[in-house]
Amino acid sequence: MQARIGDLSRLLGAELIGNPDTPVARIAPLETAGPGDIAFLANPRYQAQLLATQATCVIVGPAMRDAAAARGAVLVAADPYLAYARLTQWWAQQARRPAEPGIHRSACVEEGASIHPTATIGALAYVGRGARVDAGAVVGSHSHVGDDAGVGAGTLLKPHVSLLQACRIGQRGIVHSGAVIGADGFGFAPTGADQGGRYEKIEQLGNVQIGDDVEIGANTCIDRGALEDTVIEDGVKLDNLVQIGHNVRVGAHTAFAGCVGVAGSARIGRHCTAGGGAIILGHLEIVDHVHITAATVISRSILKAGQYSGMFPFDDNASWEKNAATLRQLHTLRDRIRALEKKT
Amino acid sequence: MQARIGDLSRLLGAELIGNPDTPVARIAPLETAGPGDIAFLANPRYQAQLLATQATCVIVGPAMRDAAAARGAVLVAADPYLAYARLTQWWAQQARRPAEPGIHRSACVEEGASIHPTATIGALAYVGRGARVDAGAVVGSHSHVGDDAGVGAGTLLKPHVSLLQACRIGQRGIVHSGAVIGADGFGFAPTGADQGGRYEKIEQLGNVQIGDDVEIGANTCIDRGALEDTVIEDGVKLDNLVQIGHNVRVGAHTAFAGCVGVAGSARIGRHCTAGGGAIILGHLEIVDHVHITAATVISRSILKAGQYSGMFPFDDNASWEKNAATLRQLHTLRDRIRALEKKT
Amino acid sequence: MQARIGDLSRLLGAELIGNPDTPVARIAPLETAGPGDIAFLANPRYQAQLLATQATCVIVGPAMRDAAAARGAVLVAADPYLAYARLTQWWAQQARRPAEPGIHRSACVEEGASIHPTATIGALAYVGRGARVDAGAVVGSHSHVGDDAGVGAGTLLKPHVSLLQACRIGQRGIVHSGAVIGADGFGFAPTGADQGGRYEKIEQLGNVQIGDDVEIGANTCIDRGALEDTVIEDGVKLDNLVQIGHNVRVGAHTAFAGCVGVAGSARIGRHCTAGGGAIILGHLEIVDHVHITAATVISRSILKAGQYSGMFPFDDNASWEKNAATLRQLHTLRDRIRALEKKT
Repeated sequence: MQARIGDLSRLLGAELIGNPDTPVARIAPLETAGPGDIAFLANPRYQAQLLATQATCVIVGPAMRDAAAARGAVLVAADPYLAYARLTQWWAQQARRPAEPGIHRSACVEEGASIHPTATIGALAYVGRGARVDAGAVVGSHSHVGDDAGVGAGTLLKPHVSLLQACRIGQRGIVHSGAVIGADGFGFAPTGADQGGRYEKIEQLGNVQIGDDVEIGANTCIDRGALEDTVIEDGVKLDNLVQIGHNVRVGAHTAFAGCVGVAGSARIGRHCTAGGGAIILGHLEIVDHVHITAATVISRSILKAGQYSGMFPFDDNASWEKNAATLRQLHTLRDRIRALEKKT
Repeated sequence: MQARIGDLSRLLGAELIGNPDTPVARIAPLETAGPGDIAFLANPRYQAQLLATQATCVIVGPAMRDAAAARGAVLVAADPYLAYARLTQWWAQQARRPAEPGIHRSACVEEGASIHPTATIGALAYVGRGARVDAGAVVGSHSHVGDDAGVGAGTLLKPHVSLLQACRIGQRGIVHSGAVIGADGFGFAPTGADQGGRYEKIEQLGNVQIGDDVEIGANTCIDRGALEDTVIEDGVKLDNLVQIGHNVRVGAHTAFAGCVGVAGSARIGRHCTAGGGAIILGHLEIVDHVHITAATVISRSILKAGQYSGMFPFDDNASWEKNAATLRQLHTLRDRIRALEKKT
Repeated sequence: MQARIGDLSRLLGAELIGNPDTPVARIAPLETAGPGDIAFLANPRYQAQLLATQATCVIVGPAMRDAAAARGAVLVAADPYLAYARLTQWWAQQARRPAEPGIHRSACVEEGASIHPTATIGALAYVGRGARVDAGAVVGSHSHVGDDAGVGAGTLLKPHVSLLQACRIGQRGIVHSGAVIGADGFGFAPTGADQGGRYEKIEQLGNVQIGDDVEIGANTCIDRGALEDTVIEDGVKLDNLVQIGHNVRVGAHTAFAGCVGVAGSARIGRHCTAGGGAIILGHLEIVDHVHITAATVISRSILKAGQYSGMFPFDDNASWEKNAATLRQLHTLRDRIRALEKKT
């Protein structure tokens, strides 16, 4: 595939410095780009790479305009990272065969499921019985999902996805392979010792409601609600191997990296993020614009926007062993300091 | 669907206060229940919600009997949470089409697999060759799994489950979508540097034995044993995305929340629980009635029943940064306290 | 199945002490082995088990030769663990029906995928369109993958594997059920508040390149690269439920236990290991021969070989609560020590 940078300039609404007929054949990272490649600089910290790159053309922000122009062809965009995102979308449209709307011959769609004609159900995917939408259901604040769609317009279920009974997803969604939407939430009532301490199943009578423009990663699980529905609002992005327990609500435009786990009945605000491996316990509330560092365990509600962290710092093994041993006596250390303070 | 509370009273063996002909149309959480709903109060902490609820009928324990009766119709059950569980089971039976016993047309069952005629093998599920049961195999203490069942009576494999070669599951089990039972355990012998430091595969010759009344979550993995079998005893409940390594034994009526990982050859007792994201290292023993807090790493055996924790407390990012920096010098702090103690 | 220990001696290149015609019918752990079993002792720490075992024959290293011979038949191997690995391989070949090369009738292979005739594509597996190999592509240092293979010679994709569009795997690989190779990496450009703070998708234009002799666990995910490829070099072993983000490179003969997560653009060296549940953050570098303890979070580059740890020590719940509370004031403790030091 080839593109002329003049055409890309028009596509991205970016100022062009250089010959519009210059061809580029690949989008490449700034660091490894060579002749014939187009690259981008989003973070001014990497300015040294800008000067060293062999790329034929570079997308930069206004602040880097002159530095970039000094070395060759440039596209100047207000937000170069966003321009890069849009360039990849255009590039994928040109280079890849588009998803074919419809149900793959090897997929299994049960009776009563409702799939928009522009949606794509991938190979070996499963769509359960009676997927349907209550009129006027609202998911997040920006959209109503129409009556016609268990799987919304333009939505793409990749191979091996399970969208189980009576769950639904809105428009322009992408669900990656192996994701399971609508498995039973984890709910059991313990019986007494007189009955052997068995667990009695609490049937999960709710469903999963997923808004528009949601992307769900490979092998991610979103459980159905116990009584009401588990809700993923519009624009949410979940990476791979994420676990969303029953009755959880994830607010619009929130993004979770890989291996995040959210326990049942947590309510997460909008425009939040969680780094990889973070765990959010159940029955708590997190307000909008909360950012959780990777591998942090959120054990109580967060009612104020901001960044929250709780990552145990790693060290070489010998240092860690010494510190970990002391850590188990931390309370004693505090008492010893207190005693010293009294003495002096 | 509608039910009369007099019928529910008989079903649950609960005392009815109110008109038995009162209809209810939905089970709902106490907090959001409205007219026509039946709700329950299991935890006396939420008594305020009891007084405020709009529910038509409320299930409570004996201690809440009078408070609840003062506001309307009541079902009084010895254990209201258990009564709620049983109500959901009955409700699901009425409201949902039952699983159809047999093998879904899109499932793949290899030759020599043995599936009880009352079991259900879901769409696109896979059952491997030679799934069979040794006569008199015991899983846990309460049951023998009969000769006739690779998949036991009444057991339900949901869409996309893999039950691999020669593994078996007992009666009344539920395995959720994407679960993999019987993948190879992770076993390799390192070769010396003279052979490139390659790993030589240790073939996993054992199987997986799963007892009765076991529920296994979506995308959960239970590996086959290296030489002997990995064993999941009766009544175990595993949530989604749980990893059970080879040769592990999980005792009867133990429950693990989402994203728990158990490394190879760990032996877990009965009636244990582990919160979400907990990690249990390999080759250790945990006795009965041990409860592990979410996100805790169990790095040595636990020989005494009780609650164990090791969750790093989170904080706002600035506070965490200061504390984490100090944490890496913790051993030094101890030495400084010691020095001070000698001086004073 | 039965084997004579004389034959096993020749197979393993091990010295035999005892009657070569002695039959063994099972490989068993030293601890539980009985008459008719062959067992092995790899770790001298378990010497007491050697003396107690009922096994008919034991594989040991040269140092244990005489102690073992005193109790019965012995195979003496230079590396008894490696000998055990090879014995399991031979045993599996005898006892199990071999994988049948070819594409299972229920698998789905898209047009343009290239699969070596000796490879096995399991039941209900999916191989995407245009899986192909660039001539001379190098994965790791030991191998070139030929032009002919999207799935290499002898490679085994188990049931329910997804090998997505244009990704490829080399020779003698094993991919366990539910693994997803080539889902989109997690890449989004945030739009400004004026556009609702939505995320704009960055199309993932790279692929996944997997070398020879790689084993990939059940439900593990390896994402395709954003611009260039995600690379898994030769001999890598990944356990179940591992997440490998986009653009990551995992060096040859590196092994990750279950539930490990590696964020995007991390570069991992060769001959590294990570214990279960470890998290490696993105955009960092780890050199060769780095060993990461289970449940450790690697938050910056590691440029020196060695063992690194950061596991929060667990304790009984009451002790943990006291220590955790103090931990949140750790910085203050340091200040108090400083103040005391000034005074004394």
